[in-house]
Amino acid sequence: MTTFKPLSDRVAIRPAAADEKTKGGLYIPDTAKEKPKRGTVLAVGPGRVENGQTIAMGVKEGDDVLYGSYAGTEISLAGEDILIVRESDLLGRIDD
Amino acid sequence: MTTFKPLSDRVAIRPAAADEKTKGGLYIPDTAKEKPKRGTVLAVGPGRVENGQTIAMGVKEGDDVLYGSYAGTEISLAGEDILIVRESDLLGRIDD
Amino acid sequence: MTTFKPLSDRVAIRPAAADEKTKGGLYIPDTAKEKPKRGTVLAVGPGRVENGQTIAMGVKEGDDVLYGSYAGTEISLAGEDILIVRESDLLGRIDD
Amino acid sequence: MTTFKPLSDRVAIRPAAADEKTKGGLYIPDTAKEKPKRGTVLAVGPGRVENGQTIAMGVKEGDDVLYGSYAGTEISLAGEDILIVRESDLLGRIDD
Amino acid sequence: MTTFKPLSDRVAIRPAAADEKTKGGLYIPDTAKEKPKRGTVLAVGPGRVENGQTIAMGVKEGDDVLYGSYAGTEISLAGEDILIVRESDLLGRIDD
Amino acid sequence: MTTFKPLSDRVAIRPAAADEKTKGGLYIPDTAKEKPKRGTVLAVGPGRVENGQTIAMGVKEGDDVLYGSYAGTEISLAGEDILIVRESDLLGRIDD
Amino acid sequence: MTTFKPLSDRVAIRPAAADEKTKGGLYIPDTAKEKPKRGTVLAVGPGRVENGQTIAMGVKEGDDVLYGSYAGTEISLAGEDILIVRESDLLGRIDD
Repeated sequence: MTTFKPLSDRVAIRPAAADEKTKGGLYIPDTAKEKPKRGTVLAVGPGRVENGQTIAMGVKEGDDVLYGSYAGTEISLAGEDILIVRESDLLGRIDD
Repeated sequence: MTTFKPLSDRVAIRPAAADEKTKGGLYIPDTAKEKPKRGTVLAVGPGRVENGQTIAMGVKEGDDVLYGSYAGTEISLAGEDILIVRESDLLGRIDD
Repeated sequence: MTTFKPLSDRVAIRPAAADEKTKGGLYIPDTAKEKPKRGTVLAVGPGRVENGQTIAMGVKEGDDVLYGSYAGTEISLAGEDILIVRESDLLGRIDD
Repeated sequence: MTTFKPLSDRVAIRPAAADEKTKGGLYIPDTAKEKPKRGTVLAVGPGRVENGQTIAMGVKEGDDVLYGSYAGTEISLAGEDILIVRESDLLGRIDD
Repeated sequence: MTTFKPLSDRVAIRPAAADEKTKGGLYIPDTAKEKPKRGTVLAVGPGRVENGQTIAMGVKEGDDVLYGSYAGTEISLAGEDILIVRESDLLGRIDD
Repeated sequence: MTTFKPLSDRVAIRPAAADEKTKGGLYIPDTAKEKPKRGTVLAVGPGRVENGQTIAMGVKEGDDVLYGSYAGTEISLAGEDILIVRESDLLGRIDD
Repeated sequence: MTTFKPLSDRVAIRPAAADEKTKGGLYIPDTAKEKPKRGTVLAVGPGRVENGQTIAMGVKEGDDVLYGSYAGTEISLAGEDILIVRESDLLGRIDD
């Protein structure tokens, strides 16, 4: 099976369907200037290195996250769309 | 219930109605070049990491704050509008 | 009473009337390319954080200061105009 | 035999054929805004130096990697095309 | 008497008359692409802060200095023109 | 005899003839977007200084190197063309 | 006698005549994209300060140096043309 292991502070995300509401009723208003997107974390990198120190990642596999809409690079793995973003593109975690 | 947990030094804010005056009479003059906005802090991230050190946030849940008008990303959670900004977008705290 | 507490290295200033001369005769020549302004410090933030260290502010409440004319964000508090600038926008202190 | 030894945090890559699917079915959708590319690591530099510390590389010879499509400098060595990129151009590792 | 106390690494200068030659014959050629200017230091700030350390200033009150012609902000204090520049705008000291 | 001693992290290079192939068959394809060049290191500087530490150079006199085509400043010394580049312009070393 | 003492990492240079060849035959080809220039160091500053540390200068009075042609600010001192550059504008030292 092919797996993708992000490097540095990158995060692999399975994007959620755009209009999908979470059970708790989170959705992104059409009027929003910059429409953030939702997705699930598939894998995270080891973290970026600053002055020789590896900075631990703030998210982990399985987290449900919001991220800036213009972020990332798309690939497809075993028929599944995956978006590769930087941790700094993530706005926050959604807990249902 | 769906909750939103900001990451890094981001802050989730419930924006106040634009023309709403505080009891103490704070409002934003129309003539102001860049009209800052008011809102209440709903949640804060853990803080940004600099050289391996997490920098504590200067605001907390419940604070009444002023922030730059062009800042942030809008989402709606359980029918409530929420703005996600960076701590550096915050001008200051308002104590009524 | 509503008070405004600046965050980080921001400074709240009550701008002086533009043409007002200090007793000691300081005023800003019309010919000056970039006309700095004068005002009184109402409140200062805790200071900016650099590598985990909070850098002490160089001005305090009551100081009479000069600042770059394009700096800051305007608000009005209890009918009083207030300008919120960064410490780095301040040119210096005026002692009459 | 001529060998190429990258310097600093550079990586020498043998690019894979563009449309080649991995056994595990990874390929890059045509619709992708920025089509990342795949290749095999031939050699890595010693790592970049930050504040006197050499930062270890996150990839090694033989790794199968994805990288940004606009990255790198092309050379040909003994009839083989080689791309020289920076480690920061690499998105992640692919394990079949 | 009104005095002006520069902040951070700023320097208050009394500009010399443009064509004034020093006794030792220093003057600025008209042909010079960027005509530096001369003046006398009236007051210096405490110095800039870097990583919590205050960096001592390299000039003091009374020094005769050369500075880049586009630098600084003009004010007038008790009828005297004063230019406020950053230490990094200063090219060097002139000892007659 | 006139010798040239580079400063900081600069490197003096004798550029190789453009189309010259190494014994091992390395040459730069015409199609390459940005055609790197080959040359021999004549002299290296002491290295750049970062936070008071001198960073050792990664190349030495006699190394055969590849560098970005737009890099450097040309001089001629005793009838020989010399290119002065920064270490960061070097892509890697070629070992025949 | 008027002397000029550079500040920080600045260097005062007496430019050599443009076409002057050194005994060892160094001259700058007309074809060179960016024609570096030659001159003699008259005085150096104390060095730049980084994180509270003064970085020692790599050149001294009397050194014969090459520097980028667009660098520096011109002044004239006792009838002698002087160019004030930053140390980072210097390419290297020439030893005849």
